[in-house]
Amino acid sequence: MNDFITSSLLIDFYELTMANNYLNENIGNKIVYFDMFFRKVPDNAGFSIFAGLGTLINFLENIKFTDEDIEYLRTLKIFNEKFLQYLKNFKFSCDIFSVPEGTVIFPFEPILIVRGPIIQAQLIETLILIIINHQSLITTKASRLVRAARGREVIEFGARRALGPDSSIYGSRASYIGGCSATSNTLAAKTFNIPLSGTMAHSFIQLFDSELDAFRSYAKTYPQQCMLLVDTYNTLHSGIPNAIKIFNEEIVSRGFRPLGIRIDSGDITFLTKKARFILDNAGFKDCKICVSNSLDEYIIRDMLIQGAKIDYFGVGEKLITSASSPIFGGVYKLCAIDNKDNIIPKIKISENISKITIPGFKALWRLFDHDSNKALADIITLHNENISEYSPYEIFDPEHTWKRKTIAKFKAKRLLVPIFIKGNKCYNVPSVRDIREYCKNQVSTLWDEVIRFENPHKYYVDLSKNLWSLRNELISKNKF
Amino acid sequence: MNDFITSSLLIDFYELTMANNYLNENIGNKIVYFDMFFRKVPDNAGFSIFAGLGTLINFLENIKFTDEDIEYLRTLKIFNEKFLQYLKNFKFSCDIFSVPEGTVIFPFEPILIVRGPIIQAQLIETLILIIINHQSLITTKASRLVRAARGREVIEFGARRALGPDSSIYGSRASYIGGCSATSNTLAAKTFNIPLSGTMAHSFIQLFDSELDAFRSYAKTYPQQCMLLVDTYNTLHSGIPNAIKIFNEEIVSRGFRPLGIRIDSGDITFLTKKARFILDNAGFKDCKICVSNSLDEYIIRDMLIQGAKIDYFGVGEKLITSASSPIFGGVYKLCAIDNKDNIIPKIKISENISKITIPGFKALWRLFDHDSNKALADIITLHNENISEYSPYEIFDPEHTWKRKTIAKFKAKRLLVPIFIKGNKCYNVPSVRDIREYCKNQVSTLWDEVIRFENPHKYYVDLSKNLWSLRNELISKNKF
Repeated sequence: MNDFITSSLLIDFYELTMANNYLNENIGNKIVYFDMFFRKVPDNAGFSIFAGLGTLINFLENIKFTDEDIEYLRTLKIFNEKFLQYLKNFKFSCDIFSVPEGTVIFPFEPILIVRGPIIQAQLIETLILIIINHQSLITTKASRLVRAARGREVIEFGARRALGPDSSIYGSRASYIGGCSATSNTLAAKTFNIPLSGTMAHSFIQLFDSELDAFRSYAKTYPQQCMLLVDTYNTLHSGIPNAIKIFNEEIVSRGFRPLGIRIDSGDITFLTKKARFILDNAGFKDCKICVSNSLDEYIIRDMLIQGAKIDYFGVGEKLITSASSPIFGGVYKLCAIDNKDNIIPKIKISENISKITIPGFKALWRLFDHDSNKALADIITLHNENISEYSPYEIFDPEHTWKRKTIAKFKAKRLLVPIFIKGNKCYNVPSVRDIREYCKNQVSTLWDEVIRFENPHKYYVDLSKNLWSLRNELISKNKF
Repeated sequence: MNDFITSSLLIDFYELTMANNYLNENIGNKIVYFDMFFRKVPDNAGFSIFAGLGTLINFLENIKFTDEDIEYLRTLKIFNEKFLQYLKNFKFSCDIFSVPEGTVIFPFEPILIVRGPIIQAQLIETLILIIINHQSLITTKASRLVRAARGREVIEFGARRALGPDSSIYGSRASYIGGCSATSNTLAAKTFNIPLSGTMAHSFIQLFDSELDAFRSYAKTYPQQCMLLVDTYNTLHSGIPNAIKIFNEEIVSRGFRPLGIRIDSGDITFLTKKARFILDNAGFKDCKICVSNSLDEYIIRDMLIQGAKIDYFGVGEKLITSASSPIFGGVYKLCAIDNKDNIIPKIKISENISKITIPGFKALWRLFDHDSNKALADIITLHNENISEYSPYEIFDPEHTWKRKTIAKFKAKRLLVPIFIKGNKCYNVPSVRDIREYCKNQVSTLWDEVIRFENPHKYYVDLSKNLWSLRNELISKNKF
C-alpha cells in the first residue's frame, strides 16, 4: 500500500553525507561504539520500559538498498560512486547488545549498544531511534494505565488517532507488552497474536429503525459475545433498559449469558454506578461494564476513587500517542572507538550539563535485594569490570559524590544481552505474550515509591568508580 | 520489512463484527452517508489544515484482503462464510467527497463524506481516520511553526522521535505541505520529492582527533554545501573559530562560499547573536545560521523577539508528534441513509452536547469577501441547496440564533469535491509541492485575527436555515 515499503532509506540524510565522507577518508570500517540512552522519563515518572527490539531486529535483518534507492541518491549529485556501490552491496555486520524488551529502564543508562564499522553504526541510527523511542513510549504509557486500573482490564482502542498506519500497529504491540489485555486493531492482533476486542459503533444503532431493533439484530448474530453500546440516545432511559430486554429475550432464553454493555459518553462515573445497580437488580450481576471516551491514567484513577463500577477500560488516543507526554527522547551517541587493540573512550561535552555523555564501552548492572528481590540500584561500569555478589558494594551519586550507600547481600545481574554478532542474529525474540509477562515481572521488582505517579522516588543509577573517574578525566581534558 | 504490508486488515475489529452482521441481515448494501469532521482545533488554535488525502487515495485504491487475512478471521470463529467470501472478493464501490489537501478547515464541518454500501463505508472508517487525523495534525502544526519563523526556513528533523516508521515518512509529507522547506528524512524526500537537508552529527566531530580535523575533512568532501556543526566542544571558543578557519582554508580558497553553521545546544538566542557578530567580522555575512534543539513555535517566536540571528530552524520532536497537542480528533459519523429515492437524515444524540451530530447529506461552502478575497464564513447546507452570490446572505450562530449577520458582495465556493465515484478515482492528486502552495494560499485568505496563536477569533461556521431546522427537529424527536 505504501510506495516505500521495500526501501531501507528511512535514514536521516546526515547519516548518508557522513557515511560518504567516511568512505572518502578510508575510515568507513573504523570500529566504533554507540550507546542508545534517554534523558527524561515521560510524564515525569520514576521509570520507563524498553520496547521495540523485536520490530527493530526484523528491520535490521532486512536492510537493503534497492536500485531505485541508489538511483535516487545518485540524482542528488553529492555522493561518490564508491559509496553508492557500498550501499548496493550493503551487508549488515554490527554487533548489537540490548536490554530485553519489557525491561524497566532509567535515564542515562546504555539500553542498546552498537559496535561496528562507523559507516554502518551511523546508517542504522535513525531506524533504531524511531522504533525503540516509539514503542518504549507507548509501552511505558500502557503500563501506567494498567496500574491505574488496579486489576481491571485495559483495552487499546487507539488506531484512529495513531500518528500513521504502522504507528497504530506497533502501538498496539507496545500497549500489549505494557499490560493491555486486548486491542481493537485487527491487523495488529493478527500480526502479533494479540487478543481482539470490538463490538459495535453508534452508526450500527442508528442504521436500524430503533435501538431495540439494533440490539436484537446484534444479539441474534453474536449470542455468545454480546456487548451492547448503550449511549446512542440516552444511556439510563433507553440504552440500558433496552439492553436488559434483549439480554433476556435473545441471550438468556437461548441459554447464554450476555457479555456486557459499553458506555462512551456522559459522566462515566455516575452512569456506571447507576448501570451497575440496574443490571444487578435485573439479574445481570455478571454483565460487565466497559467504558471509553478520552480516558487516561488520571481519569481512571479518579473514577475508581469515586466508586465507578467498571470492568474494562477502552483507552484510545491518550494511549496511542502518549498524549500527556508524547516524546521518548532516546538518543544515540558515540562513546568509544577501537584503535588497534585499545578502546578509546569518547565524550561529547555540551553547555547543557545533561547533554554530556558517558564515555567508553560499558556494561549495565542491576542489583537486587537478596531477600525481597526488589531492585536496589543500577550500576553502569566499563564493559570488562565485574561486580561481585560476595562483597558489599558501595554506590555513590555521580554528581553529589558525598551521597554514598553500601549495599550488601544482593544479586547482581547484567542487563545487556547480545542480539547481533557481526551482523548475525544470536537472539530469539520472545512472543509478545512472553514479553508482556516479563514486563509485568520487571515492574514487580520496583518499590512502590518508584512506581507512584506523583513525585516518584529517584531510583539510583550510578557509575562505577572507574567509569566515574574516566568521565571526569575526559571532561577536564575537553574544558575550555 | 513489516510483516503486514500487503494486508488491508488495518480495521477496528467492531467494523468487522458490524459488517458481518449487516450481511447476515441482508442490509450490507444499504446506501449510507458518513461525515468525517473534527471537534477541536489542536493547540486551541483558530483553524486546522486538512491533509492526508493523497495517501488515503493510495490506500483505498489498493484494498485487498489476502487469503492469509481471511484465514485469520476464520480462526476467530465468529464470522459467516458469506462474509469471508465477501471480503475475499472485495471491490471498493463508494463515492467519496472531500476538501482538497491543504484546505483550511474548522470544527464540525464535513471535511470528507463517504456515500456507499454500509458494509464498505464501515470497513474503510479506520483507515480514513488514521491517515487524515495524522497528517492534518502535523500539517496544522507545521503551518504554526512556519508562521512563527516569519519568513525564515523551517526544516523538519523529526524522524527519530516519530511514533513509528511510516509516521516519520507521512509526517514529513504533512510537514512539507504545512510549509516546511525541507526534511532530513531521505525516504520521505525520495517518496514525495521533498528537498533534503542534513550535514553532520556530533559523532562525526568526535570520530576525528580534533574538531578542526573533522571540519577539514567535511569541507574537502563537500566544498559547495559546507554546513558545520559547531557545538560539540564549545560553540564560541572552539566551534566557530575552527569553522571560520576551515571556511577560509578549504572553501574560500577554492572559490566557494560556506553554507553555514549549526548550533544544537546551549542558549541559542545568545549564541546566535554572538555567532552572527563573529561570522560577519570574519567576512562571512552570507554564512547562514541553523539552529535545532527541541524547538517549537513559541520558542521560535520568543527567540526572534529577543533578536536571535537565525536563518534555518530545524524542528524535530515537537513537530513530528505535534507534542503540545498530539491528537487530531477527527471522527466519522453516520448522517443519512438512502431509502428508495429519499435520503433519510440520521442524528446521534449524546449527553455531551458537542457530540450531537449534524444530520443529512450536506455541502460545505466558504464565502469570500468580494474585494479582499478574505474568508468571511463557512456555511454547511443540505447537499441540494444553493447559495447565490447575487443576493445578500444572512448567517446566524447555530446555538445563539439571535447572533446574526448579513453578508453582501461575496463569492461562494463549494469546498467538497468528488474523489471517488462508485469506487473509481475521479480526482488527480496534485504533487506535494502544489499542495503546499495551495495551503499557503489558503492560509492567506484568513484574517490575522483567526491566525494568531493566543485567543484567536472564532471563525463563523454556520448552518443554513434548512439544515438548522432539520437538526433541531431530529433532536426534539429523539429527546427523552
